[in-house]
Amino acid sequence: MRPKIYLFGDSITEQSFGDGGWGASLANHFSRTVDVVLRGYSGYNTRWVLKALDRVFLVAESDDSDGAAEPLAITVFFGANDACLPDRYAAFQHVPLDEYKRNLHSIVSSFKKRWPKTLILLITPPPIDEDERLRHPYAENPSGLPERTNEAAGAYAKACVETAGECGIPVVDLWTRMQQFPDWRKAYLSDGLHLTEDGNKVVFEEVVKKLNDGGLSLEKLTVDLPRLADIDHSDPLKSFQ
Amino acid sequence: MRPKIYLFGDSITEQSFGDGGWGASLANHFSRTVDVVLRGYSGYNTRWVLKALDRVFLVAESDDSDGAAEPLAITVFFGANDACLPDRYAAFQHVPLDEYKRNLHSIVSSFKKRWPKTLILLITPPPIDEDERLRHPYAENPSGLPERTNEAAGAYAKACVETAGECGIPVVDLWTRMQQFPDWRKAYLSDGLHLTEDGNKVVFEEVVKKLNDGGLSLEKLTVDLPRLADIDHSDPLKSFQ
Repeated sequence: MRPKIYLFGDSITEQSFGDGGWGASLANHFSRTVDVVLRGYSGYNTRWVLKALDRVFLVAESDDSDGAAEPLAITVFFGANDACLPDRYAAFQHVPLDEYKRNLHSIVSSFKKRWPKTLILLITPPPIDEDERLRHPYAENPSGLPERTNEAAGAYAKACVETAGECGIPVVDLWTRMQQFPDWRKAYLSDGLHLTEDGNKVVFEEVVKKLNDGGLSLEKLTVDLPRLADIDHSDPLKSFQ
Repeated sequence: MRPKIYLFGDSITEQSFGDGGWGASLANHFSRTVDVVLRGYSGYNTRWVLKALDRVFLVAESDDSDGAAEPLAITVFFGANDACLPDRYAAFQHVPLDEYKRNLHSIVSSFKKRWPKTLILLITPPPIDEDERLRHPYAENPSGLPERTNEAAGAYAKACVETAGECGIPVVDLWTRMQQFPDWRKAYLSDGLHLTEDGNKVVFEEVVKKLNDGGLSLEKLTVDLPRLADIDHSDPLKSFQ
């Protein structure tokens, strides 16, 4: 049977199968070996998903009765909404920093308990381009102030990195990684928050690296049916007996 | 639990999660409602997959014990390799026309028996640009003759359309549909056989149309967790109780 990698997160995960998206690129990378399964929920924060965790992974849990469905890996990519400021128009999505960290711990613990062998990979929220956020509000915003700041996103990213350290699991520090490139605002963000194709490429490459580090490389995964290069041209059916 | 749509086919399916690919676009289209599961096998013809059908869908079959895993739909997209000419360099992939049709019938019958409610959607092979095939051989080809012709692909496409009629299931006649556009060779094919982004778009749009016709539209599918627009800003957790 073909194993799974879950992509669990907010809109940056939900949109990851759009053109050039990091989710689609992962599915393409693992096209013969792994099912890349999308569990992205636009607008969600860690408080909401924690309440809904059993509903999201109900099937996986029931599959576990035969021990077959433990995923190879799961990416956990929340924080961009938690980091909405509590006194701006997206305040209903805000989760205080200490609660965000506790929630991430709870999510990781839940997965560790359910799937002891699964590689759990945290991804921090991306950096924020505040000017672009003002140009792309998703609600009336007469205040003239952005609903997110890069500084706040950075605090949540730091808490995410700390959580990974405390849990002994890998993390992609996207907030730091993206800002290493001088033109990160235009190159990686389409609306000051969501990702361009180049931004998606960064996530894809960083996730592949961490999966490789965790032993989930193409070389180590097995195919369910032989590759064309391994089929004998003079007797193809030999491969299917 | 989230239902599945399987994409079952050859390289045109295996590559469908590349940039702008029709599989990724389907996964994006159904991002909150359906798992789009890739089962593409480059180079395969109907003879080989028929031998391997139980291995490809083993999991789904065992899942069936609880009646949970019957997919909503499955696309069956073979014929491009069957239509390789028997006296050219890719002869080992060739399957005679009458056997191709019999094999397609067997594949459809097997799915119908296993999953009586699943929408089975056949897709014909695309048209072939013979000049481009000569420029993109995948083996030594001193003959100066292409391994596929558009005429042969058309005969297999016709057999695929007939099979769909005989089985009472829908079909995307890609061979005919693509050639309705005068510049189809350049617009839709990247190497005379595989699809450009525009070619992928044609497949995506035609598949979505057929799924809609079969009742699998976004409007009729339910989400596992509420959309952001349906969450009460003054009491978000109400949605998660």
